[in-house]
Amino acid sequence: MTLYFASTTAPVNIATLKYWGKRDKDLNLPTNSSISVTLAQDDLRTLTSVCTGPELTDDKLVLNGKEESLASERTQNCLKDLRQLRKELENSDAKLPKFSEWKLTIVSENNFPTAAGLASSAAGFAALVVAIAKLYQLPQSLSEISKIARKGSGSACRSLFGGYVAWEMGNETDGSDSKAVEVAPMAHWPDMKAAILVVSASKKDTPSTSGMQLTVKTSDLFKERVRDVVPRRFEEMKKSIREKNWPLFAELTMKDSNSFHATCLDTFPPIFYMNDTSKKIIKLCHQINAFYNETVVAYTFDAGPNAVLYYLKENEHKLFAFIYRTFNKVSGWETKFSSDELAQFIKHFDTTVAKDLDFEIDDELCQGVSKVILTQVGPGPQPTDECLIDTATGLPK
Amino acid sequence: MTLYFASTTAPVNIATLKYWGKRDKDLNLPTNSSISVTLAQDDLRTLTSVCTGPELTDDKLVLNGKEESLASERTQNCLKDLRQLRKELENSDAKLPKFSEWKLTIVSENNFPTAAGLASSAAGFAALVVAIAKLYQLPQSLSEISKIARKGSGSACRSLFGGYVAWEMGNETDGSDSKAVEVAPMAHWPDMKAAILVVSASKKDTPSTSGMQLTVKTSDLFKERVRDVVPRRFEEMKKSIREKNWPLFAELTMKDSNSFHATCLDTFPPIFYMNDTSKKIIKLCHQINAFYNETVVAYTFDAGPNAVLYYLKENEHKLFAFIYRTFNKVSGWETKFSSDELAQFIKHFDTTVAKDLDFEIDDELCQGVSKVILTQVGPGPQPTDECLIDTATGLPK
Repeated sequence: MTLYFASTTAPVNIATLKYWGKRDKDLNLPTNSSISVTLAQDDLRTLTSVCTGPELTDDKLVLNGKEESLASERTQNCLKDLRQLRKELENSDAKLPKFSEWKLTIVSENNFPTAAGLASSAAGFAALVVAIAKLYQLPQSLSEISKIARKGSGSACRSLFGGYVAWEMGNETDGSDSKAVEVAPMAHWPDMKAAILVVSASKKDTPSTSGMQLTVKTSDLFKERVRDVVPRRFEEMKKSIREKNWPLFAELTMKDSNSFHATCLDTFPPIFYMNDTSKKIIKLCHQINAFYNETVVAYTFDAGPNAVLYYLKENEHKLFAFIYRTFNKVSGWETKFSSDELAQFIKHFDTTVAKDLDFEIDDELCQGVSKVILTQVGPGPQPTDECLIDTATGLPK
Repeated sequence: MTLYFASTTAPVNIATLKYWGKRDKDLNLPTNSSISVTLAQDDLRTLTSVCTGPELTDDKLVLNGKEESLASERTQNCLKDLRQLRKELENSDAKLPKFSEWKLTIVSENNFPTAAGLASSAAGFAALVVAIAKLYQLPQSLSEISKIARKGSGSACRSLFGGYVAWEMGNETDGSDSKAVEVAPMAHWPDMKAAILVVSASKKDTPSTSGMQLTVKTSDLFKERVRDVVPRRFEEMKKSIREKNWPLFAELTMKDSNSFHATCLDTFPPIFYMNDTSKKIIKLCHQINAFYNETVVAYTFDAGPNAVLYYLKENEHKLFAFIYRTFNKVSGWETKFSSDELAQFIKHFDTTVAKDLDFEIDDELCQGVSKVILTQVGPGPQPTDECLIDTATGLPK
């Protein structure tokens, strides 16, 4: 059996300037540019293996061990674009095998539970598109390829780069200039860390696609966000990253998360993603920054109640004195720290912080959080020797 | 002892187009016009008695049986303006007693617990200003007097009228054109009813004065609200009242509440007045309207978690099938309905509603609500024979 293989990993990214609103639903063209930080793949990544060969009879997708449909228009758009680029390559070199005409097997696995409510579609579509681009040996740049990932899931385009990434909204109606670009590589500002507080949600949230369409249609305040607020913030945030201006980056991140959720609330009927636990985490972050009279933490919330806290490595002990004290009953801390190190955070709180504290730590807040994920800025998609497909049969292992 | 007396009651009003933001803090001049419905005084009112006489030695204020300071600049501004108008009257007619030079005793009582978190300052300042204006026999119109009440508490100016009231923001820097006017009297649209769900709050909210100042200073979306959203809505809502267009009035009311809370969330640090219970009430209202495929209820939230539900008398049975079913464990229903009538709401739900319901009534939602207050549109300040001051001594009874 003649088979060709490729595998890649792709990261999760968490926006610091939010994508909310499509100007074209089919092409996933956004109403505003956005910015994100790519997270380390040790903690959160999708691994995707693909194979093709003349004897495969169907396109097949297996996600986390379960066969899934490839019929969605979004997935079909990605496959069509990739095969088209491969076709152009084959047209220019007759010796190349006709991958563009053969079926594909795609096998994909996350190293984190999808149940955690973390947007896995970005990493998933990024991995799918990069793996096939690699299999097809496409010569296009990552920014070019990001336009294909964008059609799968808007924010997926940002997962094609590591470090600090901008998705330029573009102006063209065909989406040809709506792509991801690197603002700065991970190595430019390697001390950016993230603590994700997974907040227990009682109900399913409004899906982001229908939610953002309703916002575009009904929110008056959204118009101002798109017209004035985000374009200004986009330039300011890129500058703050290039200059490693943490206080500015942090403030813009928090403000933009609030602005996004404000337009959700201004949607009719209103959309609520944050719950009372989310709000208490926001209050705690502002109290922590006020306590130190210094910005040590920046929160951001996607279309769900989970809090992503960004902070610099140098401020970890300051932040963790508070958040380990508050959330030590949940799991996740042990993945990065020994019990001795964790005890130090408590000690720091008890000996240094507690005496000057003018507010009480809310011990019940812990009950609204199910898990903490500790991670940091990371690289873009990585080649891997791991293959999820049996090289003899072309079937999932 | 020579003493002169006057007493009045004044109502609570609940805005349907929200006042949020001052352009002048000392004069309580708003950044936008607002609209409210005045509520019936059987359910919610302040009763204020005032007296003056040459032998009184101090200005004195007794609120709900407790002596309070009159030193606040806001109260002093009100007293100064009222004495100035009285002075002008005395100057034009030398026979008039010199009330403007004598001290005042002010005694005030609410017929509802302040603990309920219902803005009592509007009714309080309206009653204070109207009682003194009456004592002083001031010839000015209610709109003129409303400018004085406005200096005490912005929204107090709207409590000088019954029915449907607009507070025109005005343009002058001295506030001379920032006053309340009647949009329509109670009798124009007498079927407007209100159910107030008093939501249990665990913490004290951000005071509205400092909250709105922070919004003006930090929210980008607030600029759009003030510049474009509210001016448009102000005209639309007045029209909806004049035409008794309930679906439009209801939609504008809900949207404006959401818009106001969205700008609070866009404030930095963000301000949260609604909690998870408030949000669930919002969702329930939209579900109720969707169920009937007709607008039967409109929610609005002030600077706190309490929900005010407006509805038309003719839709009461439709609304109460849901809200009495959901909140029947809390007190307040018995003030307006017999147990037989209440049983009818349950029966209506069980026999007519339940079979077509595509969502579940959340029985836990009841736990977030402590009380229901049932009321309706009402008249403005009313003269009363009741006097809270001993006519012999000039002291509180």
